[in-house]
Amino acid sequence: MDKVRIAIIGVNNIGTVHATYLAQHQIKNAELVAFCDHNVKHLATAKEKFGSQYKFYSDTDEVMKDPDIDAIIIATPHYSHPELSIAGLNAGKHVLTEKPAGVYTKNVREAINVSHEHPELTYGIMYNQRMNPVYQKARQLVQSGAIGELRRTNWIITNWYRSQSYYDSSSWRATWAGEGGGVLLNQDPHQLDLWQWICGMPKRIMSFVSFGKLRQIEVETEVTAYAEYENGATGVFVTSVTETPGTNRFEIVGSRGKIVIENNQLSFWQSVVDEQQWNQEYKGGFGEPEVWKIDVPAVWDDQTGHAKTVQNFVNHIVDGEKLVSPAADGILGLSISNAMYLSTWQQQWVDLPIDEDEYLTELKKRIATSKSKHDGQQ
Amino acid sequence: MDKVRIAIIGVNNIGTVHATYLAQHQIKNAELVAFCDHNVKHLATAKEKFGSQYKFYSDTDEVMKDPDIDAIIIATPHYSHPELSIAGLNAGKHVLTEKPAGVYTKNVREAINVSHEHPELTYGIMYNQRMNPVYQKARQLVQSGAIGELRRTNWIITNWYRSQSYYDSSSWRATWAGEGGGVLLNQDPHQLDLWQWICGMPKRIMSFVSFGKLRQIEVETEVTAYAEYENGATGVFVTSVTETPGTNRFEIVGSRGKIVIENNQLSFWQSVVDEQQWNQEYKGGFGEPEVWKIDVPAVWDDQTGHAKTVQNFVNHIVDGEKLVSPAADGILGLSISNAMYLSTWQQQWVDLPIDEDEYLTELKKRIATSKSKHDGQQ
Repeated sequence: MDKVRIAIIGVNNIGTVHATYLAQHQIKNAELVAFCDHNVKHLATAKEKFGSQYKFYSDTDEVMKDPDIDAIIIATPHYSHPELSIAGLNAGKHVLTEKPAGVYTKNVREAINVSHEHPELTYGIMYNQRMNPVYQKARQLVQSGAIGELRRTNWIITNWYRSQSYYDSSSWRATWAGEGGGVLLNQDPHQLDLWQWICGMPKRIMSFVSFGKLRQIEVETEVTAYAEYENGATGVFVTSVTETPGTNRFEIVGSRGKIVIENNQLSFWQSVVDEQQWNQEYKGGFGEPEVWKIDVPAVWDDQTGHAKTVQNFVNHIVDGEKLVSPAADGILGLSISNAMYLSTWQQQWVDLPIDEDEYLTELKKRIATSKSKHDGQQ
Repeated sequence: MDKVRIAIIGVNNIGTVHATYLAQHQIKNAELVAFCDHNVKHLATAKEKFGSQYKFYSDTDEVMKDPDIDAIIIATPHYSHPELSIAGLNAGKHVLTEKPAGVYTKNVREAINVSHEHPELTYGIMYNQRMNPVYQKARQLVQSGAIGELRRTNWIITNWYRSQSYYDSSSWRATWAGEGGGVLLNQDPHQLDLWQWICGMPKRIMSFVSFGKLRQIEVETEVTAYAEYENGATGVFVTSVTETPGTNRFEIVGSRGKIVIENNQLSFWQSVVDEQQWNQEYKGGFGEPEVWKIDVPAVWDDQTGHAKTVQNFVNHIVDGEKLVSPAADGILGLSISNAMYLSTWQQQWVDLPIDEDEYLTELKKRIATSKSKHDGQQ
């Protein structure tokens, strides 16, 4: 395939962002060909903004049937991501889904299983923060062993300020039936993904999730979660939508070094010798290994990384470039947030991988009493 | 009283530090007159270092009976702090105890009760970090309402690196019978006190305490604790002795501002309007209150604050200056660490104030199987 012809499904918010750089031909070997939205107002707005040279569909089935569409970008509400992914893959389309991969892992696993039946198709997820060199370098330092064995992780991500008016802007927002979660599901998927992409998956989680705290909504506004890893390392994840100014600080500690990412700057310290070895050999009282502060170049010249993610998706289709964000990875960060909900609902430890049926059962209880009648069909 | 004549009980480690600035007449209206230690080697070393013009006692009873001693500084192992405080107060001495006030709150409460029978005597604790202007300014900002209502606290205090050889240096160290705890009891009392001194006491705690992790000791080397406050605020306290380089970062978030203390620098941000009011009035989408970064002068020209704490203790005795660190406050930080142990031992939430008998029962179980036979009498 020389040129990937792309349709965007869902053109209200983030869909228009993707349409903009595609329409401006910023993505090599890609062509924007169609818009799809069941809301005709959104379609009319898109037509006005981008021009009438595109196809405009109000039914996703029409997109799936159109042989002149090679790939779809899914930018609809969360609940519909897996079903549209499945429809796209079964129709022979390459699929790039917005995050999260879905609301619950059982659903996402179905989509991933369908993708396994179509190895010829590319199934990616919009984890655009993976394009940020700051996180790429952190991952390299951890995975190469530069920080030694992982000991502790700590992410304070509270700069997702959201007002009551933001939540009131749509009736499906911040409801169990309409959105399926709060800050963990809507704002944090990038951080939850990067946390596991860089440090690996925890083996169990205990969490303290506050639902409707300081905002009149059904879902969570603040979370503190404690995690344990297979090797004995520990972790903390703190998030909130009500703090101003918020914090975004990610600390990773290993037996030989420490990484801190704050204000989009990476700081790195490395001991001259691994702490474990030093501890075995040292015979004094209050000594500590010698530590060097090392400047690691990592400049982020991009606001979002969206275009880079789409370019990588297209390159993977056209010439097999390694896909940075396979949608199969989408289940990992989602498992972590599902585990956080489950731990608080059941007031106990939750092991990972989670019991997917159990999670869905618990989620359905909240959907059943949700104020929103949309049930993900908004 | 014009001049306070002071005896130091326990002259091995920190006791000699206090003796040094007292012997150099750095404390106005104070005079070092005696040393006491049941280990005659320590006494001989002190005599060699400070000269033979002082009294040297090997029995604390002799100190208590000496009418020419007005005050004692207790610098013995943790377990003995309350009993020596009680003996001193009952003998009519002013008492300044090293931290922690004791190992368990029931014991400390007894000492505080005895002090209530002697309102004419001063009973202080060596919370020398309360003299640090960085923490004093933080307290002022919180207590004056400058940050609004408390929302979240977070202290990562992992720069207490201790090697195995440090723990191996004395047989009583890091044992339940000899020391009664690890990093929470030996290294963290300052932070646990400042945490509550600045932010108030939490109402309940869930903690994850790791005993003997990465060090061959009975007691804890690493802790993550989650706290909830009466007003709904949340908190996290993370500590460790095995990280290098460690972190010391204290974040305090309120409805109108944020304080971060790191590298002994205080950073302060304040919203132009309280978030709660702003949220009620704002009708837009992704807005956030305007925030000002404000430089608060806070310079710490002292290595430790020990001499300042002793000067304040002496001034309180001589002319009634307000005592910055009353020993009665010592039970607060200690309650928090007792609650952290109890939560992990019982794998459940612990409410504050804690059940002091329950804690002692649980502690005694650990003492009973402790490797150390010293039982606090080392």
